[in-house]
Amino acid sequence: MAFKHANILSIDHFEKTDIAEIFAMAAAMEPYAQRKKITRVLEGAILGNIFFEPSTRTRMSFATAFQRLGGAVYEVTDLSSTSLVKGESLYDTSRVMESYVDLFVVRHPTQGAVQDFAKATSRPLINGGDGTGEHPTQALLDLYTIMKEQGRSFEQLDGLSIAMVGDLKHGRTVHSLTKLLSLFKNINFTWIAPEPLKMPASILEAARQQGHHVHQTNDFKTGITNVDVIYMTRLQEERFSSSAEAQIYRGHYSLNRKIYEQCCTPGTLIMHPLPRDQRANEIDVDLNDYPALAIFRQAANGVPIRMALFAMLLDAYPG
Amino acid sequence: MAFKHANILSIDHFEKTDIAEIFAMAAAMEPYAQRKKITRVLEGAILGNIFFEPSTRTRMSFATAFQRLGGAVYEVTDLSSTSLVKGESLYDTSRVMESYVDLFVVRHPTQGAVQDFAKATSRPLINGGDGTGEHPTQALLDLYTIMKEQGRSFEQLDGLSIAMVGDLKHGRTVHSLTKLLSLFKNINFTWIAPEPLKMPASILEAARQQGHHVHQTNDFKTGITNVDVIYMTRLQEERFSSSAEAQIYRGHYSLNRKIYEQCCTPGTLIMHPLPRDQRANEIDVDLNDYPALAIFRQAANGVPIRMALFAMLLDAYPG
Amino acid sequence: MAFKHANILSIDHFEKTDIAEIFAMAAAMEPYAQRKKITRVLEGAILGNIFFEPSTRTRMSFATAFQRLGGAVYEVTDLSSTSLVKGESLYDTSRVMESYVDLFVVRHPTQGAVQDFAKATSRPLINGGDGTGEHPTQALLDLYTIMKEQGRSFEQLDGLSIAMVGDLKHGRTVHSLTKLLSLFKNINFTWIAPEPLKMPASILEAARQQGHHVHQTNDFKTGITNVDVIYMTRLQEERFSSSAEAQIYRGHYSLNRKIYEQCCTPGTLIMHPLPRDQRANEIDVDLNDYPALAIFRQAANGVPIRMALFAMLLDAYPG
Repeated sequence: MAFKHANILSIDHFEKTDIAEIFAMAAAMEPYAQRKKITRVLEGAILGNIFFEPSTRTRMSFATAFQRLGGAVYEVTDLSSTSLVKGESLYDTSRVMESYVDLFVVRHPTQGAVQDFAKATSRPLINGGDGTGEHPTQALLDLYTIMKEQGRSFEQLDGLSIAMVGDLKHGRTVHSLTKLLSLFKNINFTWIAPEPLKMPASILEAARQQGHHVHQTNDFKTGITNVDVIYMTRLQEERFSSSAEAQIYRGHYSLNRKIYEQCCTPGTLIMHPLPRDQRANEIDVDLNDYPALAIFRQAANGVPIRMALFAMLLDAYPG
Repeated sequence: MAFKHANILSIDHFEKTDIAEIFAMAAAMEPYAQRKKITRVLEGAILGNIFFEPSTRTRMSFATAFQRLGGAVYEVTDLSSTSLVKGESLYDTSRVMESYVDLFVVRHPTQGAVQDFAKATSRPLINGGDGTGEHPTQALLDLYTIMKEQGRSFEQLDGLSIAMVGDLKHGRTVHSLTKLLSLFKNINFTWIAPEPLKMPASILEAARQQGHHVHQTNDFKTGITNVDVIYMTRLQEERFSSSAEAQIYRGHYSLNRKIYEQCCTPGTLIMHPLPRDQRANEIDVDLNDYPALAIFRQAANGVPIRMALFAMLLDAYPG
Repeated sequence: MAFKHANILSIDHFEKTDIAEIFAMAAAMEPYAQRKKITRVLEGAILGNIFFEPSTRTRMSFATAFQRLGGAVYEVTDLSSTSLVKGESLYDTSRVMESYVDLFVVRHPTQGAVQDFAKATSRPLINGGDGTGEHPTQALLDLYTIMKEQGRSFEQLDGLSIAMVGDLKHGRTVHSLTKLLSLFKNINFTWIAPEPLKMPASILEAARQQGHHVHQTNDFKTGITNVDVIYMTRLQEERFSSSAEAQIYRGHYSLNRKIYEQCCTPGTLIMHPLPRDQRANEIDVDLNDYPALAIFRQAANGVPIRMALFAMLLDAYPG
C-alpha cells in the first residue's frame, strides 16, 4: 500500500511487504524512541489523539511516539465536554477537528465508528481500536515483539507455533494477530478458551483456508506445551452483558512459574496485550523478573511501531 | 488599541482600524496555520487554556493556534480537581496560575467572571466566552470568514446584508457579530427568531442608532431571500430554565438544499458557529458538499485569527 | 546525595549540602522560569505527570517547569480511564508507563503508594505528595522562599523563628518544612493549633532532640508576635472523617491587616502553601496587596525549584 496520507484502519490493508516496510522503519526509530537520538521532524505538527473510549496505555503510547518525533499532541477524552452531547454528528466533529490537527488517532467503542470518522476527513487517521473490531497497531507491535524477542528474521516467522489463551471471542488483539500471522506460512495456532469464549468461526475458517494448523482446546497445560509463544489475554469484562456472567470465566487460565517450568522450554516467550488483571491473575507476579516475560518490552515496542506509522503517513523521516 | 500585553475581553474595545490590523495579521498567519511554514516564535511560552465551562472546539482551536506558533499549552478543564472546590477565590486562582503561564484564555459560565479573572492578573488574557456575555474571537473569525469567502476588501463590507436565524436571545455569537458589523456602514440585518427568542432590545437600539437597517421577522423563507449571508444558530438549550421549554423551539428553522435553491442566489454564504444540532437540523446534511456551505472553513478560520491575537498580545511575530 | 537518575521521595534523603546545591541551581533557573532566557535542554524528553489525587496547582507547576526546559508533558489524572479499574496493579502501571516517559512525578492519596510506584521503575521519580505523608518539593520551595524573601544566605537561616498555624496534624507541608528547617541550628518553632490538630508527637520529639526550641499554643496573637515568618495553613477537610467534624475548626485562626499590624514588624513574612479557603479566611483579602504577603511569590518559586530538580535528575543543564 502507499502509506503517504493513508488511513490505517485495519490490518486487512496490509500485504507482507507493507509489514516488512513498517518493521524496518520501526527498527530505525528505536534510538529516537529511547531518546538516544533527538529529532524535530514533526515540529509544528499536531496529533489529534481522540479517545471516545478510555485507554490510558494506548493513548499515552501514541502521544509519546508523536512527541518523540518533535510533534505536539492534543487529546480529547472527556466526551461529556464535546459537542456530541449538543447533538453534533461524528461527521461534523471530524470535519471541524481536521482544521486543528495534522493526523488523527481515534478509538471508539462502536465497531465502524472509526471508519465513519475517517471517511469525513482528508487527514490521515490511525484506528486506535473500535469496539470488538480492529486495533491494527497492537497486532503490529505484537508481531514485531515476536521477531525481536526470538531473534527471527521476517522470513523466519514461517512455521511459528503460538498458543493464544483466554477470552478469544471478545479479544480483538488475538483476532488481529491471527490475521497478521496468517500472512506467513505454516503457522501453528493453539487456541485455548472456554467453549463460550472460543475464537469466532470466521477467523478459524480463514486461518485454515490459508493453510495454517489450528488446534482448539480448553486444556491449558497441554495447550501451552512446546509452543514458541504463549499469548495470554484478559477477560474483556466490559464486553459481557453482565458482570456476573463475566465472573464465571475469571481466573480460568493462570500462568505461573511452576506451570511454565513444567510445560515450556526457556525460550518460550510470554506475551500479554496488558493490562493484566490482578483479580484473574492471568500471569502470576512470580514471573515478573523472568527473562521470558516479554509483556513490558512488548508494551514498549508500541512506541517505535507508532513512530514508524506517523513518519510514513506524514512522509516525514528523521535523520 | 495597543495590543501588546492587552486583554481581549470584549469586541467593544475594538475600533475599525484594530480589526483591520488583526485581519491583516491573520492573513499573514495562514501559511503557519496550515503548517506550510513552521515557526518557533513562541518557543518556551505556555498558554493557560482555562475552561470553567466545556467547549472542546474553541479550546482546541486556541491550543492549535498557540502550538502552531511554537508554544506549549496547559489546559485546565476538570474543575472538580481545582482548588476552587477547596474554597479558593477566582482572584487567587488567577494570581497563582499567572506564574505558570505567559497568556491566558479563559471561558466561564458566569457573565463577568472572565473580567474578574483578568483583573487579578498582569498576564494578557483572551475571553474565550463568558455565559451569555461575549466571545470576541468568534465574532472576529465570523467577520473574517465573510470577507474571505465573499472576496470583499475590508471597506467593501459596507452595505452587507445578513440574516441571523434562531435563538437570537441567548446566542452570544450573533450579539457580538452584530456589534462588530455595526462598525461598518449601512448593514442590512434580518433577524429571524420566534418571539420569545428575539434579539435583546439593547442590541436592536444600538444597531438602529448607528444607522443600520434592521428587519425582524419569524418567517424564515422570506427572511433569507436576497441576503449575502445566512447565519444559522443552534438553540442554546443549556441556557433555558428547563429542557421542556427548550423543546418548544427545537427545529423551528431548518435550512436545506431545496429551500436554499428556492430563496438564495449561489453566492449566498451559509454560516453557523457550530456545533450543528442533528436533532434540530438547523442545516440539513444535504448541503454538506455545497460550495456555499462555509461552516467548516469558518471553524478553520479560528486558527489564524487566534494566532494573530497571540502574536500581537505577546509581541512576537514569525518570520 | 547523587541526584543523577535518583528519586526524590522524601526530604529525609537530604543533607544540608544537597539543599544548598538545589537552591543554587534554582537561582540559576530563574531567568528560564520567567522566560527571559529560553532553553531546549530537555527537547524530546517527556514528563509523566501522574496524579492519582487531584491537585491542579502542583501539577501545573511541575508541568510548567518541565516545559520551560524544553520538554513535553504527558498527564494522567482521570483515573477512571486507567487500567487500574481493569484490575491492573500499581507495579504494572509503573512498568508500562516507564517506556513512555523519561521522568515521573506521582501524587497518590495513600501514604507509601508513591514509594511502591518508584520501586517498580528505573526512571527517576519525584514524589508529588502522598496522602498525609510527604511532599518534598513543597518544603523546598517554602524554604527557598524564606531565604529569598528575607535576603538571608543559606547559613543565615540558623536562628530563624517561625510560627506555623492551623491544622498541624494533617498538613504535610508543615511536617516537611519542620524537618527541613531542623537541618539548621537553633530554630524557634511556634506551633499554633487547636488541641486535636496539634503537630504529631514524633515530629515534636525529633525537633527537640535536634536542639530546636518548640513552643506550642492555641493563642494566635501571642504566637505570631515577634516571629520572622508566619506560615498559615488550610484546614485539610478532606482528611477528616466527616465534614461536620471539620467544621468545628474552620475559621479558628484568621490573619488580617489589623492583627498583623498589631503583632508583627513589617519584615514578618506571611506564607501559605495555598489554596486559601475563602470560607475559613486564613488570610484576609485586606492583606492582598501587602508587601509582606509572600503567598503568590511562594507559589511562583515552585517553578525554579522543580526545574532545578529536573535538571539534576536528568543530568541536563541549560546554557
